[in-house]
Amino acid sequence: MRKAVVLLSGGLDSATVLALALRQGYSCHALSVDYGQRHRVELEAAARVARALGAAEQRTVKIDLAAFGGSALTDSSIAVPTGGVQKDGIPVTYVPARNTIMLSLALAWAEVLQAQHLFFGANAVDYSGYPDCRPEYMRAFERMANLATKAAVEGHGLTVHTPIIAMSKAQIIEQGMKLGVDYGLTVSCYQADGEGRACGVCDSCRLRRAGFESAGVADPTRYCPNGA
Amino acid sequence: MRKAVVLLSGGLDSATVLALALRQGYSCHALSVDYGQRHRVELEAAARVARALGAAEQRTVKIDLAAFGGSALTDSSIAVPTGGVQKDGIPVTYVPARNTIMLSLALAWAEVLQAQHLFFGANAVDYSGYPDCRPEYMRAFERMANLATKAAVEGHGLTVHTPIIAMSKAQIIEQGMKLGVDYGLTVSCYQADGEGRACGVCDSCRLRRAGFESAGVADPTRYCPNGA
Repeated sequence: MRKAVVLLSGGLDSATVLALALRQGYSCHALSVDYGQRHRVELEAAARVARALGAAEQRTVKIDLAAFGGSALTDSSIAVPTGGVQKDGIPVTYVPARNTIMLSLALAWAEVLQAQHLFFGANAVDYSGYPDCRPEYMRAFERMANLATKAAVEGHGLTVHTPIIAMSKAQIIEQGMKLGVDYGLTVSCYQADGEGRACGVCDSCRLRRAGFESAGVADPTRYCPNGA
Repeated sequence: MRKAVVLLSGGLDSATVLALALRQGYSCHALSVDYGQRHRVELEAAARVARALGAAEQRTVKIDLAAFGGSALTDSSIAVPTGGVQKDGIPVTYVPARNTIMLSLALAWAEVLQAQHLFFGANAVDYSGYPDCRPEYMRAFERMANLATKAAVEGHGLTVHTPIIAMSKAQIIEQGMKLGVDYGLTVSCYQADGEGRACGVCDSCRLRRAGFESAGVADPTRYCPNGA
């Protein structure tokens, strides 16, 4: 059975990607990264999602990106914006080089597992403000990865799959519903409370809610009683 | 003053690179990575080297690559070879995707610091068996990095400097001696003891010792009494 490493955050996008990879017949090794994010309950969500969908295993690697700061997601002195989705520029929720670091960790695990496939839930439509979600970035990462490893040198290259990169949030949800994803298990909110309840007002909550509305699917998200 | 992030392992190569970057007038932010390596005393060496040479600061980021295994440097069930430097193929001391992960962390810090320069002590001559020390890999990483970050999108690209990539070990030592590097502070051994004393027989010790001999410089390395 072909092995794949799937980056699994515990959010809606990566849960859908895991379901897609499993449907395509891959034995999926789910990797979650504890990078000091505020929304730590998403890591518990990742474990639940991996179990529910049938991943071969799920591991969480810890790395302290908060040591560098520079993002509302890792630096408690920078507030998560709640006033509506930013139209221009790169949001303060951007974490410096986060996707590069997470993909590099996935690359390391893939090499040890002798997996030649890596699945990543980057999305360039609703989050076009993040440079490391763009198709040209993903291609450059794949090219670099295929020069980086012993496996690649020995002829076992790596393919980076980004199956939802061009989908709208509604299309992602429609896809996941067909594959039986229980979105009630996922956490997308940037500042979810300790029980995984969403604020309803950060960019991630707004995009997610709009996605369910647009897909015509009942939103299974648990919101904080004093949220929006 | 131009800022640079310098990857500093505590070994001979990266100490020389730090000295070179300082001589070129960069304000140097030294980054060490605790990746669960056997030779942990090299991290203490990194702090000593940074202080002695005059780095602006030195930070150590911890990440548990031992969780993936697959290398003699992180997996205690794989022995460090001591029978002589391997001539063909990739050594078991290769750590899957290690340089990609370390460079990605340096990229993150560079972005937060608004530094546009990254110095890395890769060497393709004495370690030609490591795929992620080759010039074509370094160029591919730089290309990827310049698509990955907010800084790059906003026109502040990153240059990855690998000043010793084509030098022999003897040339690196000669360069460092001119710059006043105290190699007695550095630790290169893959299995140094708790006091930083070298085994004398692993590949890294053999290459280092041969470098001092070839450069005609007295070897300041402290060896274990029961080593070679």
